[in-house]
Amino acid sequence: MLLSGGLDSATTLAIARSEGFACHCLSLDYGQRHGSELEAAQRVAAALGASEQRTIKLDLTAFGGSALTDENIAVPTAPSAGIPVTYVPARNTIMLSLSLAWAEVLGCRDIFIGANAVDYSGYPDCRPEYLEAFEKMANLATKSAVEGNAIRIRAPLVALSKAEIIRRGIELGVDYRLTVSCYQAGEDGSACGTCDSCRLRRQGFISAKIADPTRYQPETNS
Amino acid sequence: MLLSGGLDSATTLAIARSEGFACHCLSLDYGQRHGSELEAAQRVAAALGASEQRTIKLDLTAFGGSALTDENIAVPTAPSAGIPVTYVPARNTIMLSLSLAWAEVLGCRDIFIGANAVDYSGYPDCRPEYLEAFEKMANLATKSAVEGNAIRIRAPLVALSKAEIIRRGIELGVDYRLTVSCYQAGEDGSACGTCDSCRLRRQGFISAKIADPTRYQPETNS
Repeated sequence: MLLSGGLDSATTLAIARSEGFACHCLSLDYGQRHGSELEAAQRVAAALGASEQRTIKLDLTAFGGSALTDENIAVPTAPSAGIPVTYVPARNTIMLSLSLAWAEVLGCRDIFIGANAVDYSGYPDCRPEYLEAFEKMANLATKSAVEGNAIRIRAPLVALSKAEIIRRGIELGVDYRLTVSCYQAGEDGSACGTCDSCRLRRQGFISAKIADPTRYQPETNS
Repeated sequence: MLLSGGLDSATTLAIARSEGFACHCLSLDYGQRHGSELEAAQRVAAALGASEQRTIKLDLTAFGGSALTDENIAVPTAPSAGIPVTYVPARNTIMLSLSLAWAEVLGCRDIFIGANAVDYSGYPDCRPEYLEAFEKMANLATKSAVEGNAIRIRAPLVALSKAEIIRRGIELGVDYRLTVSCYQAGEDGSACGTCDSCRLRRQGFISAKIADPTRYQPETNS
């Protein structure tokens, strides 16, 4: 499964564990601004009893084209029309492709991803129709699949609101203090509170009527 | 476009150039045994007038599972039944995903790949049905595509025999001495002559009735 270290992927890991899966977690160090999410991924994997967590390095700043991979593009602190500049070209496709490779080597049939298409930023590669198309492609792509071991792309959060995700995670014992969602998190994992990801997360805790455990940076604490 | 430095991708580059495309070539340093193919990619890109050639590093030996990425699995020197152990899990999916990211940043609409499903090793991710499924997925994956700039996956060699590929390349001025196909090529790019890739290439020149310019390693020269 893909584990970024954020709220959604932590919840997805908890769901997969609750269904009895032994979870092999893949994180991608792609040169993202919020490198502290990778440390969060390690903490979350350990806390939720993952079988293993690996971080693979792939420098997407070589391509750029996103506020997360090009330091000359600022992270917006107010909502924007359309797909925001924090969109990273083909990121989920790249990460699912890597997880497909690892799944085949491990002999796994289920690939979990924390994609969500309700309270989200409009990224095209979070939508159910995209995930279905990836699954179809994956089942034509690998030796294992053509030999009859079909791959399933599992996105248990895809139709949940952020508040529903948080309530589900709390039920399953997720400690959201361990997670990092902020696109410009400090090295200590503290959150700006104003980026798109922070706004969705903060509103989720408010809607869920659950105290927000996020550590915000002093200047934006509220 | 994807450029490995082998015979097929060199021919694909020549075809794309002959159709008037400005070609941005992507090579993947994934820890393959035959690292000399990456130097071949640079030579081929320069010789055929590519606009640029970039090599991106992604260590697939972290996953293993292939004779090309695990030094404990030997490269076979005789034909085998089924998909051979030189198959690298999800390799074309990973490489096409990376090219999709770069294509979106560059504003390209055509992604060329030298996949071939006639004289090939049976790799599932070389077949037309796989490439069509990837194209469908890609057109749901990116901001650019959902905004109306459809991506096309172009595989001009997919239905050609190796001899037809070679004849087409010769017509277009490809110097096959610059290319490296061998899975266990020497550091100088010389070929073993016995691996699956060498056998297909060698037979292609024989069938095309064109002198084989490949530099073979002394012990296997014939």
